[in-house]
Amino acid sequence: MSENIKIRAPATVANVGAGFDILGFALEGPYDELELSLVNGRGKAKFVSLEGYGKGKLPEDGKNLCAIAVQKVIDRLKIKDKDIEIKLKKGLPSSSGLGSSSASIVGALHGANKLLGKKLNETELLQIGIDCEAVYSGAHADNVAPCLLGGFVLVKSYEPLEIIKLGGVSGLHVSVCHPDFELETKKAREVIPKDVPLKNVIKNQSLLASLIYGIAKDDAALVARSANDYVVEPYRAPLIPGFGDVKKAALAAGAGSCSISGAGPAVFAFSLSQKEAEAVSRAMAGAFGKNGLGSRRYVSGIAKQGVHAI
Amino acid sequence: MSENIKIRAPATVANVGAGFDILGFALEGPYDELELSLVNGRGKAKFVSLEGYGKGKLPEDGKNLCAIAVQKVIDRLKIKDKDIEIKLKKGLPSSSGLGSSSASIVGALHGANKLLGKKLNETELLQIGIDCEAVYSGAHADNVAPCLLGGFVLVKSYEPLEIIKLGGVSGLHVSVCHPDFELETKKAREVIPKDVPLKNVIKNQSLLASLIYGIAKDDAALVARSANDYVVEPYRAPLIPGFGDVKKAALAAGAGSCSISGAGPAVFAFSLSQKEAEAVSRAMAGAFGKNGLGSRRYVSGIAKQGVHAI
Repeated sequence: MSENIKIRAPATVANVGAGFDILGFALEGPYDELELSLVNGRGKAKFVSLEGYGKGKLPEDGKNLCAIAVQKVIDRLKIKDKDIEIKLKKGLPSSSGLGSSSASIVGALHGANKLLGKKLNETELLQIGIDCEAVYSGAHADNVAPCLLGGFVLVKSYEPLEIIKLGGVSGLHVSVCHPDFELETKKAREVIPKDVPLKNVIKNQSLLASLIYGIAKDDAALVARSANDYVVEPYRAPLIPGFGDVKKAALAAGAGSCSISGAGPAVFAFSLSQKEAEAVSRAMAGAFGKNGLGSRRYVSGIAKQGVHAI
Repeated sequence: MSENIKIRAPATVANVGAGFDILGFALEGPYDELELSLVNGRGKAKFVSLEGYGKGKLPEDGKNLCAIAVQKVIDRLKIKDKDIEIKLKKGLPSSSGLGSSSASIVGALHGANKLLGKKLNETELLQIGIDCEAVYSGAHADNVAPCLLGGFVLVKSYEPLEIIKLGGVSGLHVSVCHPDFELETKKAREVIPKDVPLKNVIKNQSLLASLIYGIAKDDAALVARSANDYVVEPYRAPLIPGFGDVKKAALAAGAGSCSISGAGPAVFAFSLSQKEAEAVSRAMAGAFGKNGLGSRRYVSGIAKQGVHAI
């Protein structure tokens, strides 16, 4: 006898311009899909299969983040007589800046918790998610939280962990372009200096405040022109071939603002219509192309719903 | 024949925790009062008299910021056949961190513009106000803007100047304590380094985002616990004798957060009731007292209205 569940966990954009390490949002797509089965056993997470992105690169055993996440839920709930089998279909490439590991982790956590009677609340799942995220990169919540909760999510503080759900923004369209190029989060973190110029911090604070006010007031126009970054982007931009051209192309095609998605190399931009967002994503892909890079592009609204069963 | 107007221009708190140089709000009190008279003449601002704070210290001639401000309005409107006489009653001490010079400037601008037929709009007045502010200290808008517009005001950008009126927050009470001690804005600026630690910037971003979201949602409780500052306060605190004790006392008395008002030395704290705000202000004054400083204390709501005729 077994019980079965299918889960969809969306891509997320972290940092969102000036919101380094504290702000993220969920996309409607792309996403990872997971199938989890509860079977008789001894309290083990069993990784069964991997399809899609990461095949041949990501671990297909207990070291896969999905298995680590499921095992943490099993251990936390002291389950001794059941196993959970995991099939992962990755729609998100790794090291893309689109919250690929968070999607796998959150999908696994959500699914395992549901199969085991929903005994963990959102805060507990979030904390476990951050711990899992820290296994292969630094502990940060700005992908895990929006993947779990949907919409824009603000990390008010890390110690103690406090999250504020800011919700979606109607009429805001996101263009994402992911070049054929892997950028490790670790490397993207190493280039950021410990001290940053205050004058740039002040510019970023203005932008962040405008962004948050725009989200709170459901003002897509204000949000669209507030996702720039003068503090971290200048250090990370040189790691992404053609970034300057891509940003210029996005703005020239009508985007209100454009910045690096998470730690990169994916780049995102905000627009005010689906049509414009399509044009922006084409312009971004074109600019990567001129720099010798193929890319995948996505156009999406802000997902009001985070991870969910399908 | 003469025409006469009386103006009240409120104190303002700039920086507001993490909002260095970009966020400020207006208090209901204290305030400066000005009496302006339009008389026949040759297009000159004439400073007539000064009462209250600053007597014997502030210039009582054309070098007074009120006269400089009125003259700018007269010149801008190319008035050649009238003078404006200015009587200033200062309710705000200079170099206090409560926007004293901004109040005098904005009161003068508002009054002169009204006497001359309201030909300048808010943006024009704001730009002139920033120029006047720059005569004796650096150009910044986070006192001038809330004094002019009321409520909380965000400076979205300086070039070009873009201001967002965020409005008031109901149920939010402000305690302000101003010690008998002058701190020049210039000195308070000099202690801030050009580069600041990114880890503190991240903490401040979380706080600023929470503060702005709280203001946007009229959530006094969230605002009250979000006005802290890890970026600038650590450098300025040593300039204010007893600051650490005052902050501790404010928090112990029930304040949600406490920080330096503008460039100091005044300190402000947020509470959720009038009664609590009274207790907090007494505790702050007590702590300054233990450090050998007398002080004035104020309890006020956020003023929804900025400068106005009375």
